[in-house]
Amino acid sequence: MKVVTIVGLGLIGGSMAKDLRNADPSLTFIGVERNPANAARALELKLVDSVLPLKDAVAAADVIFLAIPVTAIRQLLPTILNIIPTQAIVIDLGSTKGQLCQAVEHHPNRQQFVAAHPIAGTENSGPEAALEGLYQGKMNIICEREKSSEEAIAKALQIFETVGLNTIFMQPEEHDKHVAYISHLSHVSSFLLGLTVLDVEKDEKNIFTLAGSGFASTVRLAKSSPDMWAPIFEQNAHFLSHALGEYIFYLQRFQQYLQNNDQEKMYEMMQQANKIRPVLDGITQAAEAAAAEKS
Amino acid sequence: MKVVTIVGLGLIGGSMAKDLRNADPSLTFIGVERNPANAARALELKLVDSVLPLKDAVAAADVIFLAIPVTAIRQLLPTILNIIPTQAIVIDLGSTKGQLCQAVEHHPNRQQFVAAHPIAGTENSGPEAALEGLYQGKMNIICEREKSSEEAIAKALQIFETVGLNTIFMQPEEHDKHVAYISHLSHVSSFLLGLTVLDVEKDEKNIFTLAGSGFASTVRLAKSSPDMWAPIFEQNAHFLSHALGEYIFYLQRFQQYLQNNDQEKMYEMMQQANKIRPVLDGITQAAEAAAAEKS
Repeated sequence: MKVVTIVGLGLIGGSMAKDLRNADPSLTFIGVERNPANAARALELKLVDSVLPLKDAVAAADVIFLAIPVTAIRQLLPTILNIIPTQAIVIDLGSTKGQLCQAVEHHPNRQQFVAAHPIAGTENSGPEAALEGLYQGKMNIICEREKSSEEAIAKALQIFETVGLNTIFMQPEEHDKHVAYISHLSHVSSFLLGLTVLDVEKDEKNIFTLAGSGFASTVRLAKSSPDMWAPIFEQNAHFLSHALGEYIFYLQRFQQYLQNNDQEKMYEMMQQANKIRPVLDGITQAAEAAAAEKS
Repeated sequence: MKVVTIVGLGLIGGSMAKDLRNADPSLTFIGVERNPANAARALELKLVDSVLPLKDAVAAADVIFLAIPVTAIRQLLPTILNIIPTQAIVIDLGSTKGQLCQAVEHHPNRQQFVAAHPIAGTENSGPEAALEGLYQGKMNIICEREKSSEEAIAKALQIFETVGLNTIFMQPEEHDKHVAYISHLSHVSSFLLGLTVLDVEKDEKNIFTLAGSGFASTVRLAKSSPDMWAPIFEQNAHFLSHALGEYIFYLQRFQQYLQNNDQEKMYEMMQQANKIRPVLDGITQAAEAAAAEKS
């Protein structure tokens, strides 16, 4: 691997470039970026060595990463597979997998594509948001492993290991269902909590002087980019709508208990929810272990 | 002030004891604690010098803090006001104010009571959870200032300043409405998000290996103590139910857009929610300034 092309020079693509360059300074990085300001900034930050049109960037590449919104990935991937050099591979880093895998199911070069999803990110976006070590110790999911060539999978796994990702394998449906609950629903709940509180604030100017760290934590994801998340929600509408329905059902039940002053039932629900503690402690420990490994 | 009595030796009461003792080592701290294990642990941790029955602890006190669940505060406060020494004051640190203020509205010793709510805490509870500096740089709300004596307010303000709290004044209704949105709703949304995801996990054993820092942040408050929160929700049922209704309304609208594939509307909602960013940056800056001041 000599030339890495990164389509989309934001948080995800930029962080990948940083860590791969740190691991092997001899690599050349080419960026593809529609937004001229982001392209210029990515060059300034030396995330990439040059920014080229897609066709040239693909022609020169050994590995191509797609780090753009998931609808753009779905549109672009067939084109890229049409023109990809024989020895190259293309890896997408998007947060949904079902529709994408379906879109290229019968493409003659499907085996040069690896469908991946590193579970990593922050609420920030753009080249400035790129972070060294973003992927260290995080989980990564590859879908439809059997549809990629052995060589493509081996190459992708080596790259993911370089940046510290732990890869597991899943089918696209299973992936999309899991992330609907574990990631996409958190984003929706946070976006709409932010909206609800902002809505009241219109009339109550000083409400936010009262907000503490608990509110900040719960609503942090409401800062996330709609450009990235609207496409994810659209592509995962089926599973996300189901998850959202269950969440609304629980909220309505709780509201009922609240209105009926049924403390016992409210207490029970909270006690059940407390079982999330060991789960979260596990996530925190994994993050701390990754941070220790990194330093 | 020589003797401080703290009723409830958990996160809130214990943290208050730690900081007041650091500021003035000559103070004597008496604890009142129903749970024998917590009482023993609080003595071991030197949060208090002794643990006494309520009557004796009140009789000896210059200042009494109530740091117990809000329903217990409401039950206990009239009794304490019946037996409080003439020069002493009692300050409650609970998260709801309407019902409590009403309960002692006509008590002959009402002027010795200060109704306060420091907006500080973590998702942990018990004596072990007590933290030095918990209150540093945080907001504190005193309700019905005019019903406390000038001396009581002056004494309370001095104490709050000692632990780094910035105090503002509000009426109980205004307070309860604001915290319903800015604090209680976040807790409900987090408890029920935890419950929703745990519910799916019953069938999907490995779902949590996929959870990232975003999920952890959004669901952190689901670890909070039901013993503390069930009473808060009960006492703030009116405003919280209203806030919850608006939240559910937004979630349902979003689900509708999702099902209709109305990306534009979803995008708009997220873009609106993004306006929470400067608000959160303000909260973070305040927390950082407080941490810097402390160190």
